[in-house]
Amino acid sequence: MKAYILTIGDEILIGQVTDTNATFMAEALNVEGFETVEHLSVADTRDGIRDGLDRALAVADVVLMTGGLGPTKDDITKKVLAEYVGTELVFHQETWERLAKLYARFGGEAGPQHRVQCDLPAAATVIANKVGTAPGMWLEHEGKIIVSMPGVPYEMQYLVENEVIPRLVAGNVSQNRQRSLTILTAGIGESTLAETIEEVEDALPHHVSLAYLPNLGTVRLRLTTRGTDEAAMQAELKKYKEEIEAIIGEYVYGYGKEDLALAVQRRMQKKHLTLSTAESCTGGAIAGMITGHPGSSGHFRGSVVAYDNEVKNILLGVPEELFVQHGAVSKQVVEAMAKNVRLALKTDYSIATSGVAGPGGGTEEKPVGTIWIAVAGPDGVRSRLLSSGKDRKRNITFTVYQALNMLRLQLDNE
Amino acid sequence: MKAYILTIGDEILIGQVTDTNATFMAEALNVEGFETVEHLSVADTRDGIRDGLDRALAVADVVLMTGGLGPTKDDITKKVLAEYVGTELVFHQETWERLAKLYARFGGEAGPQHRVQCDLPAAATVIANKVGTAPGMWLEHEGKIIVSMPGVPYEMQYLVENEVIPRLVAGNVSQNRQRSLTILTAGIGESTLAETIEEVEDALPHHVSLAYLPNLGTVRLRLTTRGTDEAAMQAELKKYKEEIEAIIGEYVYGYGKEDLALAVQRRMQKKHLTLSTAESCTGGAIAGMITGHPGSSGHFRGSVVAYDNEVKNILLGVPEELFVQHGAVSKQVVEAMAKNVRLALKTDYSIATSGVAGPGGGTEEKPVGTIWIAVAGPDGVRSRLLSSGKDRKRNITFTVYQALNMLRLQLDNE
Repeated sequence: MKAYILTIGDEILIGQVTDTNATFMAEALNVEGFETVEHLSVADTRDGIRDGLDRALAVADVVLMTGGLGPTKDDITKKVLAEYVGTELVFHQETWERLAKLYARFGGEAGPQHRVQCDLPAAATVIANKVGTAPGMWLEHEGKIIVSMPGVPYEMQYLVENEVIPRLVAGNVSQNRQRSLTILTAGIGESTLAETIEEVEDALPHHVSLAYLPNLGTVRLRLTTRGTDEAAMQAELKKYKEEIEAIIGEYVYGYGKEDLALAVQRRMQKKHLTLSTAESCTGGAIAGMITGHPGSSGHFRGSVVAYDNEVKNILLGVPEELFVQHGAVSKQVVEAMAKNVRLALKTDYSIATSGVAGPGGGTEEKPVGTIWIAVAGPDGVRSRLLSSGKDRKRNITFTVYQALNMLRLQLDNE
Repeated sequence: MKAYILTIGDEILIGQVTDTNATFMAEALNVEGFETVEHLSVADTRDGIRDGLDRALAVADVVLMTGGLGPTKDDITKKVLAEYVGTELVFHQETWERLAKLYARFGGEAGPQHRVQCDLPAAATVIANKVGTAPGMWLEHEGKIIVSMPGVPYEMQYLVENEVIPRLVAGNVSQNRQRSLTILTAGIGESTLAETIEEVEDALPHHVSLAYLPNLGTVRLRLTTRGTDEAAMQAELKKYKEEIEAIIGEYVYGYGKEDLALAVQRRMQKKHLTLSTAESCTGGAIAGMITGHPGSSGHFRGSVVAYDNEVKNILLGVPEELFVQHGAVSKQVVEAMAKNVRLALKTDYSIATSGVAGPGGGTEEKPVGTIWIAVAGPDGVRSRLLSSGKDRKRNITFTVYQALNMLRLQLDNE
């Protein structure tokens, strides 16, 4: 079944906003096996919308439209749509009652200016929008389906996920769908990873595919299968996931959308362990990533961001002679930072970083991208030297990932 | 002059990537006064591209296309384009020499697989791509202009900014363009801001507009003018900027794309001042934002991320009785944190935060979103209570902005 994505709004045409709604709808359609033939963005005008509908209905069976359903006078989608399919706008009592309740809940009242949102095409099946005011509309026209939704991203997303896709799927039970599973790895490069699991990949049946999505020392492995039988698809994903993990298990830190900080949190809280960090070149980015997660106070006690060497001395007790003998960016200093913050903050584990993030501060001996990381724990301290690139933001993020993964590996192997 | 944006690629149609190229081109066209009538994304197929071109040329004078110019067999834009305008692909010697040099610079060699990138439509003006391999192509067809560019975002951006837009503008000197200036404010809400500068806004001439772009306690004010005379447009922007600043000057922290951490860095380094932070609920996010900027070591000495109360006591010397009497989220504790970190790290100023970021940890007396911030300096310590919302990430970011702005105000007023 062919689908068409039609987005309406001058703000898209002038480049004020990026059309992320199209991406969301496209992905949702693709997963369920619908082929999207085009995305088209048109102006907020009668002609723009009519032209867009003409084109869409000429090449596709179902059109998902967003935008132009608010209460302001610019928003004309509804009127044009009613005219296009040859129906009239009629007052929709149910929508009015829903809006009245909604405004009452926030201590307000639905007024005359809200009545206009209740005028809907008589031929439309109204789809209640449980997360906003403007409802969705489902119209059948000359054997094709037109669905109109508000342009507010989370309202559109709610309607697509909970109402539109389920209805489309119900009408196309025999269609092939996709199911995916994402395995998260860290500490192994994309090409080494590909070589390591080459045999599994080569033996995958035609309808199962594997995609590599690398990002700064982490690689997401997305396993996708296609079919019509939900249980069979899930069983297949599980089978190949297990085959892959039998080979690269130690690099796997999680699944789906988890990040390394959450992977560490999950492991530490399960074992009732605590963590501290001593950060120089990462400047608080490790602590910030950790504490961005709800519940992080369950294992994370704190950090010393020692940007200045004197601070490394004052708060972390790193002896001055280490700076003189080895420099701040050295195995000796980073290990002392890790050991001392662990003791000072009384934690089971600690992470420390010290490096030249750039763009300034590099020398011939220690160019920009020279970064030491250390992890201290009950069994002592270990450190690693990273040779990263020239870009400051990338260096910081790369160091955060590498350091968290170094700790994650220790937690998995102890 | 009417413009059309045509993007090619199955990865867009299946929702794997968002079409940010369209946004970039749309904005660049809009600023220079071209009206973009539609954005269309089509499949990587002969029919997809031909249909797209048909539609584009039916309604616009200039078509900007991206995608399908790489060396792989999927990328067929070039062939279809040559056929469409009735020309042939011929080997372009200059492009070959450019590629040969490029590969040589990276220690490689341009081989037969790269020759295909040098086959270009005979009728095209070739636009050298100085940041990548595939060149851009400029074609004139039946009185209209077709420009084809690679889909790699930074290559497309380079070509649009440096080659395509200047050529289009040169052909349309009499066309109205836009020039904008963005004033960055913090500490004043959007509606109060609008009321405060209402008189200036109401007196703006028809061709000058003012947009409010709010984000978590900051509001960007974008002043836009239209015209053909560059100097006159710049003078107008300066005039209204000064009128606005005469009223709301104290809320203005910068211009353009600067963030609050950089605004603070600029002010502190000018006055040779130093900074430290003591962070509880922000968990290192303030230090992380500050140290994300190159050169931050010039004023920033470090931070104590005291997530656990014991750490506030051990590293910051916050007396235990303060926690007992007032709780960790209190004026007394946050002020002690600010004063003590300033002394311990020997800085001119310090920032401290302590609050309930959520989603857990709220009480009836101190619900989620209750956050204290303090700034200590040579003249003592000041603190403020924030009442934020329920979302953890928003609460953290809002606190970071508010705290940095509190310091920024003190630096401006001393």
